[in-house]
Amino acid sequence: MTEPVPSQLQQYRRSIDNLDAALIHILAERFKVTQQVGQLKARIGLPPADAGREREQIQRLRSLAESSHLDPDFAEKLLNFIINEVIRHHVAASDGSGD
Amino acid sequence: MTEPVPSQLQQYRRSIDNLDAALIHILAERFKVTQQVGQLKARIGLPPADAGREREQIQRLRSLAESSHLDPDFAEKLLNFIINEVIRHHVAASDGSGD
Repeated sequence: MTEPVPSQLQQYRRSIDNLDAALIHILAERFKVTQQVGQLKARIGLPPADAGREREQIQRLRSLAESSHLDPDFAEKLLNFIINEVIRHHVAASDGSGD
Repeated sequence: MTEPVPSQLQQYRRSIDNLDAALIHILAERFKVTQQVGQLKARIGLPPADAGREREQIQRLRSLAESSHLDPDFAEKLLNFIINEVIRHHVAASDGSGD
């Protein structure tokens, strides 16, 4: 059932694969930073969550998405998806923070 | 209720903001490419979904995630989240494809 993939489609897929690799590496770096945030907050006794910071992040990402012609609702859902993962990690490590 | 943010935390947050902007821009580019894939598939009569391609993408991302010390399950969930959004877009535009 293996059909030859048209070369134009192959070319698009190579771009998607490159972009996905970039996404993974940026996310890996982001988790490194949020881990440090969690440790810092625990050390200086700051609460894990910061509603003001979260509101700012959402507003900023929505407007960045708009200027990139990306659906702002999707950008917001994605940020929440990532923040939930950060919280899950931090709960597991008991060091808090949804940064 | 506005407390001064420690400078180390501010620095971490600036990194997170930069990384989030990079994520948004890469995703915007990815959606541009998947849109072209959808149009190409519709034009040449290829089915929107390709289970073999999806399996390859998942395997590739999981192994990239592992080598970046990112949770492979998270990478897989994220890819599914993005592919679902691509499908939602394509259903809306009736041009199919979960690439």
